[in-house]
Amino acid sequence: MAMVCLSDFEAYAKKYLPKIAWDFFAAGADDCSTRDENILAYKRIRFRPRMLRDVSMMDIRTKLLGTEISFPVGIAPTGFHQLAWPDGEKSTARVAKAMNTCYIVSTYSTCTLEEISAAAPGGLRWFQLYIHRNRAVSQQLVQRAEALGFQGLVLTADLPYTGKRRDDVRNGFRLPPHMKLKNLEGAFEVCKMSPLDPSVTWNDIYWLRSLTHLPIIIKGILTKEDAELAVRHGVQGIIVSNHGGRQLDGGPATIDALVEVAEAVQGRVEVYLDGGIRKGSDVLKALALGAKCVFIGRPALWGLAYKGEEGLQDVLRILQDEFRLSMALAGCASVSEIGRHLVQFSKL
Amino acid sequence: MAMVCLSDFEAYAKKYLPKIAWDFFAAGADDCSTRDENILAYKRIRFRPRMLRDVSMMDIRTKLLGTEISFPVGIAPTGFHQLAWPDGEKSTARVAKAMNTCYIVSTYSTCTLEEISAAAPGGLRWFQLYIHRNRAVSQQLVQRAEALGFQGLVLTADLPYTGKRRDDVRNGFRLPPHMKLKNLEGAFEVCKMSPLDPSVTWNDIYWLRSLTHLPIIIKGILTKEDAELAVRHGVQGIIVSNHGGRQLDGGPATIDALVEVAEAVQGRVEVYLDGGIRKGSDVLKALALGAKCVFIGRPALWGLAYKGEEGLQDVLRILQDEFRLSMALAGCASVSEIGRHLVQFSKL
Amino acid sequence: MAMVCLSDFEAYAKKYLPKIAWDFFAAGADDCSTRDENILAYKRIRFRPRMLRDVSMMDIRTKLLGTEISFPVGIAPTGFHQLAWPDGEKSTARVAKAMNTCYIVSTYSTCTLEEISAAAPGGLRWFQLYIHRNRAVSQQLVQRAEALGFQGLVLTADLPYTGKRRDDVRNGFRLPPHMKLKNLEGAFEVCKMSPLDPSVTWNDIYWLRSLTHLPIIIKGILTKEDAELAVRHGVQGIIVSNHGGRQLDGGPATIDALVEVAEAVQGRVEVYLDGGIRKGSDVLKALALGAKCVFIGRPALWGLAYKGEEGLQDVLRILQDEFRLSMALAGCASVSEIGRHLVQFSKL
Amino acid sequence: MAMVCLSDFEAYAKKYLPKIAWDFFAAGADDCSTRDENILAYKRIRFRPRMLRDVSMMDIRTKLLGTEISFPVGIAPTGFHQLAWPDGEKSTARVAKAMNTCYIVSTYSTCTLEEISAAAPGGLRWFQLYIHRNRAVSQQLVQRAEALGFQGLVLTADLPYTGKRRDDVRNGFRLPPHMKLKNLEGAFEVCKMSPLDPSVTWNDIYWLRSLTHLPIIIKGILTKEDAELAVRHGVQGIIVSNHGGRQLDGGPATIDALVEVAEAVQGRVEVYLDGGIRKGSDVLKALALGAKCVFIGRPALWGLAYKGEEGLQDVLRILQDEFRLSMALAGCASVSEIGRHLVQFSKL
Repeated sequence: MAMVCLSDFEAYAKKYLPKIAWDFFAAGADDCSTRDENILAYKRIRFRPRMLRDVSMMDIRTKLLGTEISFPVGIAPTGFHQLAWPDGEKSTARVAKAMNTCYIVSTYSTCTLEEISAAAPGGLRWFQLYIHRNRAVSQQLVQRAEALGFQGLVLTADLPYTGKRRDDVRNGFRLPPHMKLKNLEGAFEVCKMSPLDPSVTWNDIYWLRSLTHLPIIIKGILTKEDAELAVRHGVQGIIVSNHGGRQLDGGPATIDALVEVAEAVQGRVEVYLDGGIRKGSDVLKALALGAKCVFIGRPALWGLAYKGEEGLQDVLRILQDEFRLSMALAGCASVSEIGRHLVQFSKL
Repeated sequence: MAMVCLSDFEAYAKKYLPKIAWDFFAAGADDCSTRDENILAYKRIRFRPRMLRDVSMMDIRTKLLGTEISFPVGIAPTGFHQLAWPDGEKSTARVAKAMNTCYIVSTYSTCTLEEISAAAPGGLRWFQLYIHRNRAVSQQLVQRAEALGFQGLVLTADLPYTGKRRDDVRNGFRLPPHMKLKNLEGAFEVCKMSPLDPSVTWNDIYWLRSLTHLPIIIKGILTKEDAELAVRHGVQGIIVSNHGGRQLDGGPATIDALVEVAEAVQGRVEVYLDGGIRKGSDVLKALALGAKCVFIGRPALWGLAYKGEEGLQDVLRILQDEFRLSMALAGCASVSEIGRHLVQFSKL
Repeated sequence: MAMVCLSDFEAYAKKYLPKIAWDFFAAGADDCSTRDENILAYKRIRFRPRMLRDVSMMDIRTKLLGTEISFPVGIAPTGFHQLAWPDGEKSTARVAKAMNTCYIVSTYSTCTLEEISAAAPGGLRWFQLYIHRNRAVSQQLVQRAEALGFQGLVLTADLPYTGKRRDDVRNGFRLPPHMKLKNLEGAFEVCKMSPLDPSVTWNDIYWLRSLTHLPIIIKGILTKEDAELAVRHGVQGIIVSNHGGRQLDGGPATIDALVEVAEAVQGRVEVYLDGGIRKGSDVLKALALGAKCVFIGRPALWGLAYKGEEGLQDVLRILQDEFRLSMALAGCASVSEIGRHLVQFSKL
Repeated sequence: MAMVCLSDFEAYAKKYLPKIAWDFFAAGADDCSTRDENILAYKRIRFRPRMLRDVSMMDIRTKLLGTEISFPVGIAPTGFHQLAWPDGEKSTARVAKAMNTCYIVSTYSTCTLEEISAAAPGGLRWFQLYIHRNRAVSQQLVQRAEALGFQGLVLTADLPYTGKRRDDVRNGFRLPPHMKLKNLEGAFEVCKMSPLDPSVTWNDIYWLRSLTHLPIIIKGILTKEDAELAVRHGVQGIIVSNHGGRQLDGGPATIDALVEVAEAVQGRVEVYLDGGIRKGSDVLKALALGAKCVFIGRPALWGLAYKGEEGLQDVLRILQDEFRLSMALAGCASVSEIGRHLVQFSKL
């Protein structure tokens, strides 16, 4: 089976992963409308490609908070990589480093932050955080991450409670006994979300700021109002995200929400996006609408499920090649030439 | 079979109810466009969820005309509950009381008002009324209901004649011989609608007012013009309803009609909605667009068909849990925080 | 099989008519987009039904150019009724008279105008005309019709050439040898359309006017520009029609074109519609948007195919009952209460 | 099998061509959205047909840069005609001449320009050019074409790199060993696109102008900005094209892009279109929206695949007949009567 595009990896993963693991990765909340909208929304955006521009020298590099990456696609925080591949997040870290891009490590990883760091020393990594009722747990995680050289702190804002993912309920999803939420061992029982604190508010950004010098990126923003609050509370970045459609069903596609967030932010902080990226041209659309970089969630897991590090690298390479080609065919030789003029919303 | 969401109860009921009963409950008029639109219309409404708001203490209670209920979902008037469960409306009444919510008892119930009241003393109940050609029949019903402690009178306005439900015509639907329209025994022959008076007009509200001290709620309003008339004729509440799509096919989805009704009413009376509620997030959308409470019709019957009182309670609990979770994920800790700002209409 | 709605007759006809006849009746031009749009367009129109209006006495009669008919549905001109039922147009004429409505007899009928008149003396009939290269043929037809008591002359304007109906080409459609275009015998060879004159212009209305005292109704108008020209050339009525989608594929649904035609005409002449009427509520929508009456084409043929006169009468009765019920449920007790306020166009 | 419309030829070709050849001709980039949009977009355009205009004498001729052709449909440049029919482009040239229309010969033809010219002396032909890194190759091709009597030079602007056509990657598409890119023999290895120069810019139009007296037509323009640049750089014609959806996936349908290009150009140069033409009425829509002529790509190949010259002639004759009929049914007797007033965009 030739792996030509990301859907090929999806088909493979669906076929070969244990059903309970596939269902967990694929799950959306309720009717999965938002999960599916994340993808459908790209189809309503049309390019306005420009011709006869010199695209012989393509430069697809960009910077994340000042650090150069090889192209504007990073790896979003998703949990439980060992469900997809035995080496879990260690493999993910190695590939991200090899591809010179950013990997956002989930709190719910099945390897420790120390193992992940040791697997790929010097790689660009951010740490994704949930705030726990027991604030000491969160504080310790933040400080471990900073000490290990993580370069950013990503606060997930859209999970005061876990969304209702019907298949996980039906399957009675829980981690197999040989896997652990290793970063949280001792802190609470595996796969029970209630330790997360639903009383977190914007003021807790100040508390986080007091714990660390790392830049703070807030993940899960979908409105201009919250984007404005994020800027005012001093974050360095915003990830427009709906948690892959796994939290509130019925919210907007991230590519649609990006438009209003980017307009509100007006470049005061960097804006990123995750959700629905399946092709290089999706990346180009997101950049045209104001994202500095996008992050992939499920496709990275499909790559791991296919062939571990090699599979994930294939996924990233395909996206990289497709992105470079889409840019060239749209008439852009470097990321700086991408802008709002490049797209229009279809009347459909 | 795990009952995770309301569709699970629908699938069960479709499989296990006698076809003639399933068809009767499921029926819509003509092509069933309006019945189906009731559901589809929710998919065109997008949340604008807000993040980092303290949702640790959730308060989902609301009030119906001053009486507190546990959450803003009541039971709409539907006929013939014994078709779904032997104890019929007595079971429905018990569950509504146990869940502390409002049950609108249909004129076409298969238990008497007295049996229903005795089954769940002290429960919050409204009585749904059709006006008969023989006004004495209606007068007697209203006065029986008031005497039995019903707390509201719901006048159905959209049934001067019965809609054309093709499957009922094909099936030659009628009640099995052991079931009766018990509240009307002696008044007219079972399942023959012609006794209803198609000459009823707004002035008959004054006549109803003269019969009872109960608040009058009018059910079946779909336009701002009629909403204005309802307010002017002194009703206490309006239920935006298209009779589950069983009357005029081609009318608007109730969630769409709600917008114009709520705008016209401007809070002068309470506005409710029935039709198409299948998930907690649907309830949230309806409240955001101006409903004080919603009522479920078919899902209550599916719950009864599944396991009687236990099944109906499952249905209400699922809606309650989903509604609470949707509120929290949208950033609302109490019903009073829900408002128009929470939703937008999709361009699709 | 219970015949409950018009689709039941369609299914019957599709199953029992010879394929070549079914295909001929069902045919649309090219991709059949316009044929299908005729039906789909009704689904985008939403009622704004009004409640609590006295609908105990329903009056569904209307007038066509001053002549009362029992309800605003007539029979459109379609050819070759003997393909559907042995007695052909004689049966159609008898039913139209029995139902007290108008039958527009096609030039391409398989019975003579004389036979048709004799079959149902005194029935309200209009004669549909194509203008032939040999004007004497058309003149003779007009004068025969007038002499036989036809009360209107319907000039078809949208067939300078016959549309491309793929199935008819594939089937090599032609009439069976025992059927004839009896009104044209001797005038030209059966089923060869070239005798029609593609040079007809608006001035030929004056020529027709010189031949007859009958009111002239023009059929096939789809734009406000042509509606204006029709009024200026002195016609008495306009039928908004796209020939059932059998001529130019890609034109508008007739219910959509009706809006602009009715607005342009402003009541100066009567406006009718054919195309896509399948339910009583479709009739109500057409009247709300400005039609004085609608005409059914294919459904009449399905009725004939089912049981001849009895079948056609069933079709008309069903439409009549559905129309009356839709009116009542929308809050209109007489045709004069129907108006533009009753409908809105769906955002979808 | 009766060949009634172009889809019949498509079905034939899909069935009888080798899969690898069918896939190559059918291929679109990525998800094939743009390829499919090219066709779907026509369905959203509605005619506003006019009635009772004298259409007895139909004149469907037009002129391409001053040269009369029999109707406004030419043959777009597509490669590798021998994959469809042994005689390849020689057959195509013969049919174009017989039908008195224009054939744009692709650089990637499997016959030499000399063979093609000799096959149909005196036929109207334009030559399609890619600019190679080795400019001498391009210069020689242009000058050969001019010397052979080609009357126009079509510069393809949308292929700095080849689009990602998944099926071609999966199939490992390459020409069979007995076929050659004959015009490029010696210039570079068969089917390796890298010799094309991705650094081409608008200034290269001046270079081309210095090489030849032929009119220059630029192919691949999709925006008003590039249309303006094309006019300013002195081209004689613009082909609105997205390369059949084979280059940048996610761009607009050509019929949609035509509107903005034609508005920007305001008649200063001729505007043409390719992409999605499947029926005579599509041609009419394109002309109504500003195209002087359209070109067909895949349908020509289907015709060749069916029966070589006879098949291609069938395809063109069908389009010609359908176009003439559509014009007549829309009320236009000559191409000069076609205009923007003839169409509107559907709300859908």
